[in-house]
Order: sequence, then structure tokens, then C-alpha cells
Amino acid sequence: MPTIGPSVSEQVELTGHIVDSLLLPKVLDIINAEGAQYELRNVVIGHNRNDPSTAVIEITADNQSRLDRVLALVSDHGAVAVNAVDCRTTQADIAGAFPDGFYSTTNQQSEVRVAGKWVEVTDQEMDCGIVIEAEVARCIPMVEVEPGMAIVVGHAGVRVFPPVRAASAHGFAFMNSDVSTEKPKGVLIRKVAREIFDNRAAGKKNLLVGGPAIVHTGSGPLVCELIRRGYIAKLFAGNALATHDLEQAMFGTSLGVHLADASIAESGHEHHLRAINRIRRAGSIAAAIESGLVTSGIMHDCVKHQVEFLLAGSIRDDGPLPEVITDSLEAQSRMRAAIRDVSFCLSVATTLHSIAVGNLLPAWVKMVCVDINPSTVIKMADRGSFQTVGIVTDVEPFFRSLVAEIDILERRVSS
Amino acid sequence: MPTIGPSVSEQVELTGHIVDSLLLPKVLDIINAEGAQYELRNVVIGHNRNDPSTAVIEITADNQSRLDRVLALVSDHGAVAVNAVDCRTTQADIAGAFPDGFYSTTNQQSEVRVAGKWVEVTDQEMDCGIVIEAEVARCIPMVEVEPGMAIVVGHAGVRVFPPVRAASAHGFAFMNSDVSTEKPKGVLIRKVAREIFDNRAAGKKNLLVGGPAIVHTGSGPLVCELIRRGYIAKLFAGNALATHDLEQAMFGTSLGVHLADASIAESGHEHHLRAINRIRRAGSIAAAIESGLVTSGIMHDCVKHQVEFLLAGSIRDDGPLPEVITDSLEAQSRMRAAIRDVSFCLSVATTLHSIAVGNLLPAWVKMVCVDINPSTVIKMADRGSFQTVGIVTDVEPFFRSLVAEIDILERRVSS
Amino acid sequence: MPTIGPSVSEQVELTGHIVDSLLLPKVLDIINAEGAQYELRNVVIGHNRNDPSTAVIEITADNQSRLDRVLALVSDHGAVAVNAVDCRTTQADIAGAFPDGFYSTTNQQSEVRVAGKWVEVTDQEMDCGIVIEAEVARCIPMVEVEPGMAIVVGHAGVRVFPPVRAASAHGFAFMNSDVSTEKPKGVLIRKVAREIFDNRAAGKKNLLVGGPAIVHTGSGPLVCELIRRGYIAKLFAGNALATHDLEQAMFGTSLGVHLADASIAESGHEHHLRAINRIRRAGSIAAAIESGLVTSGIMHDCVKHQVEFLLAGSIRDDGPLPEVITDSLEAQSRMRAAIRDVSFCLSVATTLHSIAVGNLLPAWVKMVCVDINPSTVIKMADRGSFQTVGIVTDVEPFFRSLVAEIDILERRVSS
Amino acid sequence: MPTIGPSVSEQVELTGHIVDSLLLPKVLDIINAEGAQYELRNVVIGHNRNDPSTAVIEITADNQSRLDRVLALVSDHGAVAVNAVDCRTTQADIAGAFPDGFYSTTNQQSEVRVAGKWVEVTDQEMDCGIVIEAEVARCIPMVEVEPGMAIVVGHAGVRVFPPVRAASAHGFAFMNSDVSTEKPKGVLIRKVAREIFDNRAAGKKNLLVGGPAIVHTGSGPLVCELIRRGYIAKLFAGNALATHDLEQAMFGTSLGVHLADASIAESGHEHHLRAINRIRRAGSIAAAIESGLVTSGIMHDCVKHQVEFLLAGSIRDDGPLPEVITDSLEAQSRMRAAIRDVSFCLSVATTLHSIAVGNLLPAWVKMVCVDINPSTVIKMADRGSFQTVGIVTDVEPFFRSLVAEIDILERRVSS
Repeated sequence: MPTIGPSVSEQVELTGHIVDSLLLPKVLDIINAEGAQYELRNVVIGHNRNDPSTAVIEITADNQSRLDRVLALVSDHGAVAVNAVDCRTTQADIAGAFPDGFYSTTNQQSEVRVAGKWVEVTDQEMDCGIVIEAEVARCIPMVEVEPGMAIVVGHAGVRVFPPVRAASAHGFAFMNSDVSTEKPKGVLIRKVAREIFDNRAAGKKNLLVGGPAIVHTGSGPLVCELIRRGYIAKLFAGNALATHDLEQAMFGTSLGVHLADASIAESGHEHHLRAINRIRRAGSIAAAIESGLVTSGIMHDCVKHQVEFLLAGSIRDDGPLPEVITDSLEAQSRMRAAIRDVSFCLSVATTLHSIAVGNLLPAWVKMVCVDINPSTVIKMADRGSFQTVGIVTDVEPFFRSLVAEIDILERRVSS
Repeated sequence: MPTIGPSVSEQVELTGHIVDSLLLPKVLDIINAEGAQYELRNVVIGHNRNDPSTAVIEITADNQSRLDRVLALVSDHGAVAVNAVDCRTTQADIAGAFPDGFYSTTNQQSEVRVAGKWVEVTDQEMDCGIVIEAEVARCIPMVEVEPGMAIVVGHAGVRVFPPVRAASAHGFAFMNSDVSTEKPKGVLIRKVAREIFDNRAAGKKNLLVGGPAIVHTGSGPLVCELIRRGYIAKLFAGNALATHDLEQAMFGTSLGVHLADASIAESGHEHHLRAINRIRRAGSIAAAIESGLVTSGIMHDCVKHQVEFLLAGSIRDDGPLPEVITDSLEAQSRMRAAIRDVSFCLSVATTLHSIAVGNLLPAWVKMVCVDINPSTVIKMADRGSFQTVGIVTDVEPFFRSLVAEIDILERRVSS
Repeated sequence: MPTIGPSVSEQVELTGHIVDSLLLPKVLDIINAEGAQYELRNVVIGHNRNDPSTAVIEITADNQSRLDRVLALVSDHGAVAVNAVDCRTTQADIAGAFPDGFYSTTNQQSEVRVAGKWVEVTDQEMDCGIVIEAEVARCIPMVEVEPGMAIVVGHAGVRVFPPVRAASAHGFAFMNSDVSTEKPKGVLIRKVAREIFDNRAAGKKNLLVGGPAIVHTGSGPLVCELIRRGYIAKLFAGNALATHDLEQAMFGTSLGVHLADASIAESGHEHHLRAINRIRRAGSIAAAIESGLVTSGIMHDCVKHQVEFLLAGSIRDDGPLPEVITDSLEAQSRMRAAIRDVSFCLSVATTLHSIAVGNLLPAWVKMVCVDINPSTVIKMADRGSFQTVGIVTDVEPFFRSLVAEIDILERRVSS
Repeated sequence: MPTIGPSVSEQVELTGHIVDSLLLPKVLDIINAEGAQYELRNVVIGHNRNDPSTAVIEITADNQSRLDRVLALVSDHGAVAVNAVDCRTTQADIAGAFPDGFYSTTNQQSEVRVAGKWVEVTDQEMDCGIVIEAEVARCIPMVEVEPGMAIVVGHAGVRVFPPVRAASAHGFAFMNSDVSTEKPKGVLIRKVAREIFDNRAAGKKNLLVGGPAIVHTGSGPLVCELIRRGYIAKLFAGNALATHDLEQAMFGTSLGVHLADASIAESGHEHHLRAINRIRRAGSIAAAIESGLVTSGIMHDCVKHQVEFLLAGSIRDDGPLPEVITDSLEAQSRMRAAIRDVSFCLSVATTLHSIAVGNLLPAWVKMVCVDINPSTVIKMADRGSFQTVGIVTDVEPFFRSLVAEIDILERRVSS
């Protein structure tokens, strides 16, 4: 596709594990696909897996708008114009919406160039904009925009740092699918245990995001064990997990099924409703625990062990329980604040809450998503949560193995 | 289990299709399981499938509390005390919660006995209580209780009318599972088409409850067809369906995938966010359509054809769109009002909204739940939505076949 | 549907738990559906759950052929003509096929009336015929028919004994679906452990039917544990389970994935082929173990602990291994012989072998089918394997919990 | 990892779309991971997407065995030693097994160097060996090895041509999972229709591999349509598809379910057995059709329209039908012969037969695998069938849309 006549060009630089992480071919591919040309000016490929490589690429297009578009696209993959310019901003004209042409964030580490210096963007979160205030840049969700804010527009002066691909498979592609059920699960669970254990040992915080199947499958006591021993610092859930946990504490059933012997309680479908009603009569979950109405379970142990819990409401809720945040914007805002100091997220048996949290977390906070249904894990992957590792397995045995693996790690330390 | 010594007994009557619908064995089973005895006093079994049968059953227990418990349990299956008493009520003492011992409703047609007369319960909905005001009885959700309301407690003076089992299979149990994927789907879809067609012809209202996969799979134009031709009178959805529909109208993509050729748009993940931003800038979906910003799609056709739509928010929403109801209690309340005049509900590719609507609908409003994932249908069945028929199939071909079947029905009428 | 004019009638008797097991309504339903009439002559309903009931039903039809058809249908549910006749037989005219009108068996306990006496049918298996030889009756598969055999035709003189419904749920139908993933699994696994443990203690035989995911998920060592401790008396599998087990023993990988750390071996896809090749070079699995080529794994432990294993071939097999039975008729015939003394069957992670074994087992041999994919369990239920209990869970944690539960039972016995 | 002391090195050349297809980074990655070093000697990167690139890579290792291993591994990705040698062969010492160290084939186009010339390997199939006879090379499965055959060992003198990556997505990874259910299916089905249509128009052969769900879901008439119009040239299936198709032709049911109205036939579970029995009595499917016993259905139309069908047996088969090949080795061998002239393979609703055929097909024959269960598609991908495109959708609507799309293509041609 040789161009005759006038053309414009610009040099971009790509550094890091550009071969190992497949960045170089991606960038060249984009340039080609957009109808521009490239010339590799200076390629230095690291001799060792961990050595960084550098490539300077000259991009040539037939007009400036095409060139701008290519530069914007490749910048998402870390290609930075050699002659960098400051990022451009536009004043927000109305509340709750960005100006047209706003820069839309990814969940990857990003920097903007302000007054000639590269500044890290704080509160990194995908699907946001970037506001600049006093040379400080931070991600801001659409609803929080206020008139007059300086919002970054376009891709110029913005650079992202794609995560390094984990050292992994290279051969003929057997068993590469991330959602396969046919994998050695014991190993994966051991890795999760190690992560949770190390995190706690380092004084960092683990977040559990959980669905009601945790209670239905009889995993409640195992989660309580993790809470009591400090492995879960925060809990995000919905009305259902809390309700069935409290139902279990008061009636011994979850959705009317006796957890002791899997039998179905007569009129057991009423139990969850009576549980909610009792808590509402008590005023709050905390009050019900204080008064001795509830003496065991996940919610009980959260309250007793100062584990912050956040219950977000949904339209399928009965009741709901008094602590449930029924407004989704308020719930998002509180979740956003609560994840800032989280270092690891374990999400179990909930599609809705997994996606909600996956949307908020920056790419460098690892998230492990456990579900018996492969489609939940597929949905996470489809939505761009790169850092998510999916484990297709069953909830109760998962927690049972997780606790056993943590026991082993504890014994090792103490011996 | 013969009892010696004092005992108490009461006669209950069971009428209707008690053999065909398996009610009699169920009731006898419950009596036995609870440790009471029964004697069949007067069994008249209908000679034809459609003839009603009657049985008077004398229940004997060793104490009154056991007898009361048995009477409460069998009343859920339609067994009414021969010597009926009025229902009992207790004044609500606090707002937002029922008195202890409140009668917990099912979604089946129910009556309460007030001042010697059986009165139908209005607004029938499961997991509610019953409030009596001026001899009128209606279901009330927990959150709407106000101090002083007369709330029904216990089972006395309450009777329910279980739905008649549909004429169905009897043989050796092949292919009885409701969620099998290996069924002749064409026939099932034809039945849905017939239901929707007849309903519209009779001036009744069809409700579509839909998830974003409707747009992702390219089914939007087929749903638009149904809207324009009057087969969908109301739409319940979330922020995602509307967002991707508007993304599709403005950018030709859904979640960044071009619907025309299934290719992935470069930076297409930003499209949905830019779509939301534009609508927020316009003020509302309606305003965006009015101004010509959006000229096609499901939301467009709803607005142009006066189809009521209700968008309920969730914690995973980006934006959200201006019309989204972010408070889940308000959304439930508006859904509750909107389903009153609905005669048929088609729910497609959404677990959350399906369960939410299934919780609100009375047992006599048929609901067909379509999903490619059997687990969604299983979840509906597990939660007591009896009237739900599940079809495990793919969204786009489902709608394509549905429209084709309706075409056939229309041609038959016009010829 | 009253009939005027001539009619024929016959009395049938139904005994057992006809109310509790829902047999009576089923039978009445069939009579109605076929256009015949019934009159209940003598209904004695047991007063206790475990007391048998009896009903004599007079069936009236407008012609003999309709009456015969109804009698045939209700006989499958245990309704026996009061005036019983001997079963009728026809000589097989060709090899490998039944005469027209042959009686097609179920997997339920059956008897045929021969020379005035009810004789139990041996080798009970579904989808077979019955051959009578010297007043002995046995099930025979189609392929084994030889000319001249006396094959039972029609339903007269045949009676079946439907299994008694297990004491179970009766209430409002929450959580009744058999394939729900949202159940307390620990309880179910405990029941399986108890069954396997008691069976072994009583000197009975447990059969494991397994798919390759047992090896892929790293469950091999747990299965070896069960073999070594005598809890598995027989193993049915295919070429794949044995191949990957041997691959694991020789290369440490399963389908090229290192079980120790879940990493992918370079060129690991070749391992299974090299494993098969080595075994073929050794002459047999047994020879390879004898020679020290293979020193661990499921196949190794089967050979060392005299556990009978049967490997059935399929068209997707590589190799295959020398012991694999490549002819499906021969494999069926050997499986048929091998299951005669099996008292309990645990089937894990294999649809093909589960269905094959489910087809062969009589209804009174319990089968537990474990799979992470609900559709496998649904398929089993759709194919009439009544005795099957499905557990939707993950393979490795399942075996881990199973071994742990058996440990507990052993400790209890020894203390 | 600098090596001091003696080292060995060799130059390999990589040509083709080595950047676009990600081959270069893969090869460098392998060299690093194996502990060897590389130097890029001569990199010429094509300026356009379709221009080939070339790289000469010097590989250095500390000893010859490591170097040999690296050369073997990179050769699977098309890296050929610049100073090529002839392939080495060893005489097979026993029947039915390869010599140790045999070269294990992929399904990609391969060449071996014999007497100084590169010779294409015929009958390309994965998991085979290569036999050289009179300077002709062909793939040979393990079971067909005979003593004295010259079998290729090691990787020297063997080169493979990895398939070029299809032009596809490059951006931020939304919607990349191959098994997502949330994709515009209409587009994918249109592509399949186009493939089948063009293939037929060019006189090439389409193969349908099908499971019994084709019949259960009522898709039989649509498949018949495709057969009659020449779009299916060959059919691979098992006993079940043929049985239920014949059951449907004789009884109107499939597994006892009436396809006309989805109702369950009383004693319908016997139908498939009676169908098999009748065909066995007739001698063969062909004879039954000839005699007028069977007058419609898939098998009927195959026989009438000279479509070659191949029925492979399995251990779950009832009967089986006379044409079923019960020996899996014979079935494989016949399938192997039958696929030689197939240009496109459509596999629907069968895991077993899909994997079996996927194992046999060379990488350049496209295979589309349709199933409502994502796990089937995942399994195909896990087993190295690169050329497979999975569509997670429902069978009947899939065929309905496929026929409709072909209709459109036919009309276009004729107008």
C-alpha cells in the first residue's frame, strides 16, 4: 500500500518485554490494519527473557487525522510518541457527563504528561475519564463530573503500561483455554492459598466477594474460619448471602434446605423471609448479633472480628436487610472507596458482584474468580478483566481445600 | 404410630384435581411425616380427567400445637378446615416489618376468611404478608408495612388454590427433565408464538424481560419487529441492554463487536461508554431520540411506539443512562405496579431480572424463560416460580423463529 | 367420555406404597388418557407411611384392543390383572433380532408367570427381551437372540415392581431440581462415603466408572488410595483414563500439563502418544508394570491390588493400549458379566461410560454420577436411569472429600 | 545466562508471517526457556500485512543435547535449520508400535528431507508417525506399523508450516473468548452457509458429523433438505442418530418424544428399541428403505441420494443397527479413508465424534463445531484442533438459519 504524494509521520517508542509480551506484533498489526506504514528504526531485542527490549517505529500515514488515530490506538499498547506533548484537557460543560472526545481509561497503570512531566494517574479504574487538578491526575467516573473540571481529551500525552505477560506456555496449544474444567485444581487452589497467606502476613488486605451459593453449599463455616483467622479483611456481597447466612444461623436451613442433611424443611421457603423480618425488627444485623438473636455465621463473625462488610442491593432482593445499600450508585461509590487498600480479591459464586468489582479494580490487583459454571468465568474474560484468573470448580470443596492449604502454610511457619 | 391417651382432631376438605394433581398423596404424606394420623372420611374420585374429586380427611394429633402445625402445612396445598374460622390479624407495631408469626404468602391464588366470608387476596405475590383494610385483603411487601396495619398471622382462615397440573406425561420417565437441551424446540417456540399472538389479539399485554445478550447476539432488529407490531407491550431491562442497544444504534457495535460481521472494533470497548456519555449529555434517552441522535434500535422503537420501558439499575452499571432507576426498592415498586395488567411474560437471557420478575408475578401469569445456559432455568425452578417454562436455546435463533411463527399465525388470520 | 354399546373390562390390582409413591394417580391418569374408564373397587390406604396400600381397579374400554393396550401400559407401573394368565412366548425366527411384539424390559425387578407360577426374571436389564428356558426367565439383549429361543411377547403374564420412592421432600417446591449446583455437597459426599464404606464392610463390591478428567484434575493419587484400601473392587474406563494415568506415571504430565504445578510441558502433547507406544512395545499394561516401566498410578495399583479393570475402546482413541477392547459389542458383553456382583456404582466425569453402565444396571443397584457439567447428569436422568443420583461438583475436591469422609468412618470403627 | 567455555550453535530460518502470526516471539521464547541463547542475524519484516518476513536466528547452547532439544522444539513452529540435513529413520522392530524416539506428527502441513529434497508428507494427521517408502513420506497411525518400515525419528530434516493466523482482532481484549455465547450468531451462521455453498459449487465435499440431538430437537427435516440439495456429501454419526432418525420415521417420536408437539408417548421409550429390531429383521437400513419400511428421514435421504454414511459404534449402543461398525479401529480406519477428499466439516451436537474427526483432519480442513454446551467446544480447543471454530448455539435454530442463508445464496446466483 505505497502512498504517493504528501504524507505525515511520527516516531513512537516501545519499551519493555515487547517481544515476549507480543506487544510489537500487535502494534505493527494495528498500524497495518489502519492503512498506515511503519519502518522499524532501532530494534534492540533483549537476550534474556527478563531483559527489556526497545523498538523505535516510524509511522507514516497519508494525512494527519489517520496518523492521529493510529497514534491513539497504539498508545493503548504502550507506544509513546518520541516527541511527547502534554495531554490536552477540556472543561466539563455539564455535570455528570464528560466533554465529547474524552480519554476513556483502561484499568492499566497510566501516566499523563502535565507541564512537561509524566504524572501517574491515581484511582486507576477502567471506563472512566481523567481529571487534572493542580497537576494531579485521577480517574473519575462519569457521574462524578462537575462543570468546570479539566477533563483529558484525546490520546496525546497519555501513556499506559500494559501488564507483563506471565511466564507461561509456549508449545503446541494443548490445554490453553482458561476456563477448562479439566485441570489440576489442587495446584491452583494451593496458589490461591499462598497468595492469601502471604498477603495477610505482609499486613495487606484480602477481599472476599461472595454469592449466596457459599451458604447453600454449606461453605459458611469454612468462610467463618477464614474470617476468624484474619484471612478475609473485607466482604462484599448482596442481600442474599447475608439473608441465607442469617437464615442458617436462626433456622439451620438455607433457602429451606437443612444444611446438616440436605433434606428440605417443610415450609422452609418461609425461613429466609422470617429471618429478614426478625433482623428488620431488631433494627440491624449488628443489633441482632448484639442482642443474642444471631450467634453464629458469616455475618456474625464479620461483626465480631471487625471485618468490614458491604451489602449491595439488587432488584431480586426480599426485604431487604437493614444494612443493604439499595442505591446502586451509592453502593458503587462505597465499593470504590473500600477497594483502594485491597491487594487481592477472591470472588466466589457471583456473576453480578464479580463483574462489578472487576470493573473497579486496577489491573495490578489480582482477582481469582471461582465458579462451577464456566460461563461466569467467560463473562469476566469478555469484559476485559485481564488480571482475573478463573477456576471452574465447586464452592464447598474449594473452601475446604483452601483452608487445608492455609493450615499447611501456617504449620510450616510455626515449625 | 398409634397414640394412646388424649388426642385432638379436625376435619379438612380437599377438592379439585386431587388425584391427577397429586395433591392427595402429598397431603397424606405431610400428615404422616409430621407424626399425626389421618382417616379418609369421604373420598369421591372423579371418573374423568377433568372431573373434580373430593376428600374429607380427619387429622388426629396428640396435642393442639402439632395439629395446628399440620393444618398450616396442608393449607398450603389447598386443604381447608371444614369448620372454617376467620383469619387472625395482629397490628403491625413498627414500620417496615411484620409482626412475628405473620402469614407468609405464596404466589398462588389465595383467599382469607373475613367476617365469615371468603375474600380473595389481591396483588397476589410470593414472600409477602397480607394486610386487611375494610374487609379487603391484599399482599404487602415487608418494606411497605406501616404501624397499625392489620396483618394476617397464622394459617387459620387462609386458603390457597394450587394450580392444576397441566395435562402431561405419564409413562416411564424418559425426557422428563425440564431443562433438557435435547428437545424439539420448534414446537415449544410455536407455543410461545401462539401465546403472544392470542394475548395481543385479546387486547392483553405481553411483557418482555431482557438481558444485553439480546443485543450482543444481533437479535435487536427482531425484537424491534415485535415491538413495532404490538407483540411487546412492556419492556423490563437493565442499563446494559439499553446501553448496548444505543451503542449499536450509534456505533454499529455491541460491547465493541460489529454486529454486521462479528469483527472486533479497534478501541470498541470505549463505544458503550461514549454512547452513555452522549445520552447523558442529551439529558435522556427520549431526548436523544427526539433530537435525532438515535434513529434505530429497541429503545428507539419503544419510545416511538409508546412501549413502556423500565430500566432497573445494578452495581455493575457504567454510567448509568439517565432513565435507569438506581434504587432497587423504587425499581421493585415500579415493576410491581407495571406487572398488574400483564398476562404473559417472556424473559430472555437475564438471570437477575428473570428472578426479580418471577418473584413478583402471581402463579397464574405464565412466564417463559429462555436462556442458552441451563443453570438459569434451574435457578428459576429452585426459587418456586412454578408457572415458569424454561427453554434452553440460543437467543437470536429463538427470536428469528418466534417472528417466523407469528408471521404464519398472522397470515392464517388474514387469509 | 361415556361409551354407549358393548364394552369389555378387567380388574387389576395395585399394591404397595401406591399413594406415597404416586402410583395410583399415575395409573388412573393412564387409563383416562387412553380413553378407558375406571372404577375404584376396593381401596385400602395404609395408615402409616410404611404400611402398604391396595387398590382394585376395574378398567373398562370400548374394545378389546384398547383394553389390552391399557393393561400393557399400567403393567409397567405394577398393576397386575387379578385373573392372571401365563406370559406368552414366540419362537425367535432369526438370529440377532426379536420377534415382533416382543416384551421390552425395564430395569426394574420383574416377574413372568410361567406354568401358573410367578418366576423372577434374572439378569434384569433395560431395553432387552425376556427368554424362557426350562421355566427360567432371563433378560437377553437383541444381539444374543438365536433362532428357536422362546421370547416373551406382549405384557400379559409380566409384572414389574417399581422401586419405592425414597422418603423425601413434600413441601412447597424449593430446591427440588436434581441437578442444582446450589446444594450442600458435603452432606451428599458423606452419604456416598457411607455407602462405599458399608458396602466394603459387608464384603460387597463397589465399581468405579471413570473418565480421563480424573487424571487431568490431579485426582489420581486419591483414587489410588481408594484402590489400595479396598474401596474400589472394579474399574471401568476407556483408553483415555488409562493413557493419561500412564503418561502421568512416566512423564509427570496429563495431556501435557504438569500435575505438580499446572504448567504446560513443551511438546507435552506428545507425551500421551509416547506413553501408549511404550506400553505397546512392552506388550501390555501388566507387562509394563511387571518390568518396572510403570511404578505408580491408577493402572499400577489396579494390577498390584488385583482390581479388575475393563477398558472399552472408542473412535477417539489414540493407540490404543493393548488391553483396550476395541469391539463395542464385546466390551458390552464383558461389562454385562462384570456388573453382576456389583452393589454400588460410582461414575465420575464420563458421559459415555456412565450411560453405558446405566443401561446395564438393574434399578436396585444405586449409581452416583459425579460431574462438574450439569448436562451429563441431565442426560442420565433423561435416559431412564432412575436409581442415579447426580452430584454436580468438581472431581478432585470430590475425591479429596470422599477419602476424608472414609477416614472418619474408619476411625470411628477402630475406636 | 552467559555461558563460559565451549558451546555449540546452529542457524535456523523462520519465514512467513512471523510477526503477524506471533511466530518469532514464540520461537525466541522457547530458546530462552530452554536455557539457550539467540542472536537475530537477519531480520526482514514485511511492510504490509500480507508480505512475508524472514529471520535468521543463531541458537547457541552449552552442549549438543540441549541444542538438539531446542532445534526439535522450534521446528514445530516452522524454524528450519539453515544447513538442513536429511531426516533420520529407524526400522520398526515390532508390529503396532513405533521405534523409540519416533517423530510425533502435528496436523499441520509438513515436509521431510529425503535424499536432499524436501518431500511433502501425505495423509497428514496428528498423533501419528511418518513412514518413508521409496522417497514418499506419509503419516501412519501406531496400529498400522509393520516390522521393517522406515519410521522417521527425531526432528532433524522435518519441517512444518504453521497455519497463518486469520486476520483478526488486535485491540483491547473484549469478546475474545472463542466460546462466548454472547456473540452475533447470525453472522457466524452466514459464514458457515457461505463455506458450504461455495464448497459445493466448486465440486468439493462437505462432511456432516452429527449426534442424536439433531433428531431429538426436530432438526431432521432441515438436514434432509441439505442432503437432498447436495450440501452434505458425507455423514459420520453413531448408532444413536440413525436409530432415533429411524424411530422418528416409523413412530413419529425421538427417544419417545413426539416431535410434532413435544408430548411424551406412553411407552415411548420402547420405540427406539422396536425401530432397531425392525431394521435388524430387515437385514440392513438400506434393505428397510428398499422394502418401504422406512420412507423418510436422514438415513432414508442418504440412501436415496447416494450420500455415503458411516456409523461408528460405541459401548452405549442399543442393538446396534446392522450398518454400525462396532470395532473402533475399523471405524477409525474407514473414517480416515473417507475424510481424504473432504474440504469442510460441520460437526453438530456430538463430543465423541467431533473429537474423533478432529483428530483425523489435517489443519487446513476447516471444521465448525456447533453445540449448545460450551464445554464441548472448550474440549475441542484443548485437544489441539486449531482449525476448529466453535459456535455455541442451539441445534434446530442453527439448521433453520443455515438453510435460510443457503436459500439466499441460491437466489442470488439464480437471479
